[in-house]
Amino acid sequence: MASSMLVNRKASVLGGGVIGAGWVARFLLMGWDVNVYDPDPEAPRKIQAVMDNAQRALPGLYEHKLPIAGSLTIADSIEDAVAGTEWIVEAVPERLDFKHGIYKQVQAACDENAIIASSTSGFKPSQLQEGSSRPEQIIVAHPFNPVYLIPLVELVGNTDTVVRAKQVLEGLGMFPLHVRKEIDAHIGDRFLEAVWREGLWLIKDGIATTQEIDDVIRYGFGLRWAQMGLFETYRIAGGEAGMAHFIGQFGPCLEWPWTKLMDVPELTDELVDKIASQSDEQSGHHSIRELEQIRDDNLVSMMRGLKGRNWGAGELLNSVDETLKKSVTSSTAGLLKTIERVIPVDWTDYNNHMNESRYGQVFSDAADAVMQIIGADADYITGGQSYFTVDNRIQYISECVAGEEVYVMSKILLGEGKKLKLQHHMFNAADELVSTDEQFLLHVDLKTRKSSLPSEYVASKLAELVAAHQAL
Amino acid sequence: MASSMLVNRKASVLGGGVIGAGWVARFLLMGWDVNVYDPDPEAPRKIQAVMDNAQRALPGLYEHKLPIAGSLTIADSIEDAVAGTEWIVEAVPERLDFKHGIYKQVQAACDENAIIASSTSGFKPSQLQEGSSRPEQIIVAHPFNPVYLIPLVELVGNTDTVVRAKQVLEGLGMFPLHVRKEIDAHIGDRFLEAVWREGLWLIKDGIATTQEIDDVIRYGFGLRWAQMGLFETYRIAGGEAGMAHFIGQFGPCLEWPWTKLMDVPELTDELVDKIASQSDEQSGHHSIRELEQIRDDNLVSMMRGLKGRNWGAGELLNSVDETLKKSVTSSTAGLLKTIERVIPVDWTDYNNHMNESRYGQVFSDAADAVMQIIGADADYITGGQSYFTVDNRIQYISECVAGEEVYVMSKILLGEGKKLKLQHHMFNAADELVSTDEQFLLHVDLKTRKSSLPSEYVASKLAELVAAHQAL
Repeated sequence: MASSMLVNRKASVLGGGVIGAGWVARFLLMGWDVNVYDPDPEAPRKIQAVMDNAQRALPGLYEHKLPIAGSLTIADSIEDAVAGTEWIVEAVPERLDFKHGIYKQVQAACDENAIIASSTSGFKPSQLQEGSSRPEQIIVAHPFNPVYLIPLVELVGNTDTVVRAKQVLEGLGMFPLHVRKEIDAHIGDRFLEAVWREGLWLIKDGIATTQEIDDVIRYGFGLRWAQMGLFETYRIAGGEAGMAHFIGQFGPCLEWPWTKLMDVPELTDELVDKIASQSDEQSGHHSIRELEQIRDDNLVSMMRGLKGRNWGAGELLNSVDETLKKSVTSSTAGLLKTIERVIPVDWTDYNNHMNESRYGQVFSDAADAVMQIIGADADYITGGQSYFTVDNRIQYISECVAGEEVYVMSKILLGEGKKLKLQHHMFNAADELVSTDEQFLLHVDLKTRKSSLPSEYVASKLAELVAAHQAL
Repeated sequence: MASSMLVNRKASVLGGGVIGAGWVARFLLMGWDVNVYDPDPEAPRKIQAVMDNAQRALPGLYEHKLPIAGSLTIADSIEDAVAGTEWIVEAVPERLDFKHGIYKQVQAACDENAIIASSTSGFKPSQLQEGSSRPEQIIVAHPFNPVYLIPLVELVGNTDTVVRAKQVLEGLGMFPLHVRKEIDAHIGDRFLEAVWREGLWLIKDGIATTQEIDDVIRYGFGLRWAQMGLFETYRIAGGEAGMAHFIGQFGPCLEWPWTKLMDVPELTDELVDKIASQSDEQSGHHSIRELEQIRDDNLVSMMRGLKGRNWGAGELLNSVDETLKKSVTSSTAGLLKTIERVIPVDWTDYNNHMNESRYGQVFSDAADAVMQIIGADADYITGGQSYFTVDNRIQYISECVAGEEVYVMSKILLGEGKKLKLQHHMFNAADELVSTDEQFLLHVDLKTRKSSLPSEYVASKLAELVAAHQAL
């Protein structure tokens, strides 16, 4: 039984383009084994490039170490790829007849309970399922690029299958949204389409360049949408009078002249050239790889910003942290392994080195983990008691860079009366000592704000640990 | 001459609604005096509510203290409000004849070089200027809510006036974008309009609720747009093949069926009720004031995340910090005042208190300020030499909360050979000691990564400061 726990769950991915490879990266980094099939001989190289990006970006979203990554197998056929896998990503070109042919091969070889999840942005499940012997097995699971960072997946199809699919995707740290009625382009791409169309008009008519349009978005409403979307933002604009009042104000605008610009501009060579050359001027000084890494670091930093507010994508990250946490804060036979994590990009300075204050962050988190272990946890604080740090002495031995794994071993030096003294040692993945910290804490009554004695339970847990640690 | 430096610049704001009050807040907090005119007797209360929001959110965008806030005057007439002001915000209801009447009164009383900046989202400058004696004085300066946080302002109108307007808005920390051709709804609202229209369809047809639409945006493409916008995002999606390749792939989608849904749904009472009740279900457990503060804290946290990447809105914040910095890092007669700042929301824990590691951040920044003063600055590091912190001892004396002002007085305890010892005292706005720190640093040769002697210049600056500080 115990050893079977170590067998990874298995997914397969058909198509190793930017979307397929993004799925591969997310499954692998969340501990699944993945089989990939793509007839393109260049596919393994392209997948590796996406994996490299994901490896440097995804682990930094969390305050705890991810599971051990799964293993990747390049399969020689669709049959080999899908056999024995519980999740099958279809990320092949957007041609319906081609997809139907793939599904026939997949369904002949896969488990009948496996989920066949198409990344299609254009087709509805009913179209994908045409002619299938087990249509309910095929759903749409439409992700957004980069798949390894953007949480949203639109799920469309048979409700039972979607319910099972949701569990899998939540386990990958994603935000699956059940689109209850099938519709062309699902939901997200309908908005992207509307904005794209308007963008084309503005460029064609010489009103704005690609750079100016991007600036309007990222210095303007993009910041609002990244955290509240459209309707919650407008609810606020309506003020205390509410949403109906807002619509009353804004609604008439829909009949203003610019709504007439809704036909589709013809994509002449001239318009395509105009867009491409404006884009070169805007972003051409960065390679695509550079832009990908800039984008990923931006996304990680913003989502981590929202994490501190426990809102939207940040709330999701916190809930994943709760699941990751369980496996690392248990005490070991000797000292306490209080921290196991990756250095995130927003903890680093311009030179990619961890800012010296973030050593303190790691040690502060280590102290929090000790608090959990001795029972001075959130409930204890709610009950009106807590430990306050009064003195902290950090020694810096070597540098850490973004993406590096570190762990902390903690020792209780003293736990007597109101006093608590902790010693932490931070190590890197090569088990080299990176930094040490001695923390002195006082037990405080939160009502009187004065030092006080801890509860008997906390005192006895401390006495136990001090005795064990002194023997080491 | 010296005393005239203390006279604040003056703006006036006509209309104290959510946009007008947002302007008031931004001007005041950036050190301008502001006159407001609004006949609504409730206006002062409403403006104060927006000011309170701005006061808790805006200062936290920066690593340096803002200028001393200007003073607010409630004027009894348009004439009194605009007289002697160099910038006049028109934020009155969107009725053209009404605006024309206002401009007539304004132009009769204001300086002829003053800029009359309309916040209109709907009218073009040529419409606003109809019948004006000095039409070039009237421009569009269209901001986005909340005006005190969102950087974008769309500027439309006479180029000379727009050039002058840009300087003023940049001084307020904003991102003014010159819209070179006037067009209905400028640029940003055209996109908002396109998305709003699509949202109405999705709700009317029962495809998605307001909550689901917001989730699609904030867990999906909203995160991409907040930092790169539309075209740079798609440039990446096109991969090494570039933008033209991407358009080739995505372009045909424009002829897909969903583009036919472009007519405008009628805003029946039924549809309005549907949206309002969905919005209540989604967000009704928060008051508007709560939502405003959540939104502001989210925006501040995300923009500060981008600040660490020096990208988009974050790059803008860094450039403002450079201008704020000049006024605080100069040495005083005695100890060095190295830090003067506000505690930002992303430095605090769930209970609004500054996380203990951020005391270390303040002291690390204080050490950086000392480095500037002794000449161990960015050029020095580029030249291959630097100081590394090896030991840091922080004592925590009292708590700090988000929005609180703190400053640090720094003393050089020792500056001899390779060794440098600094002592910092952090105080709150009531001059109470909050925390102390002793830092021990070693001078390092960045090539050999070994300790070494500082340059003669640095050594002499240190000797000078040590002598001065010992005498204190």
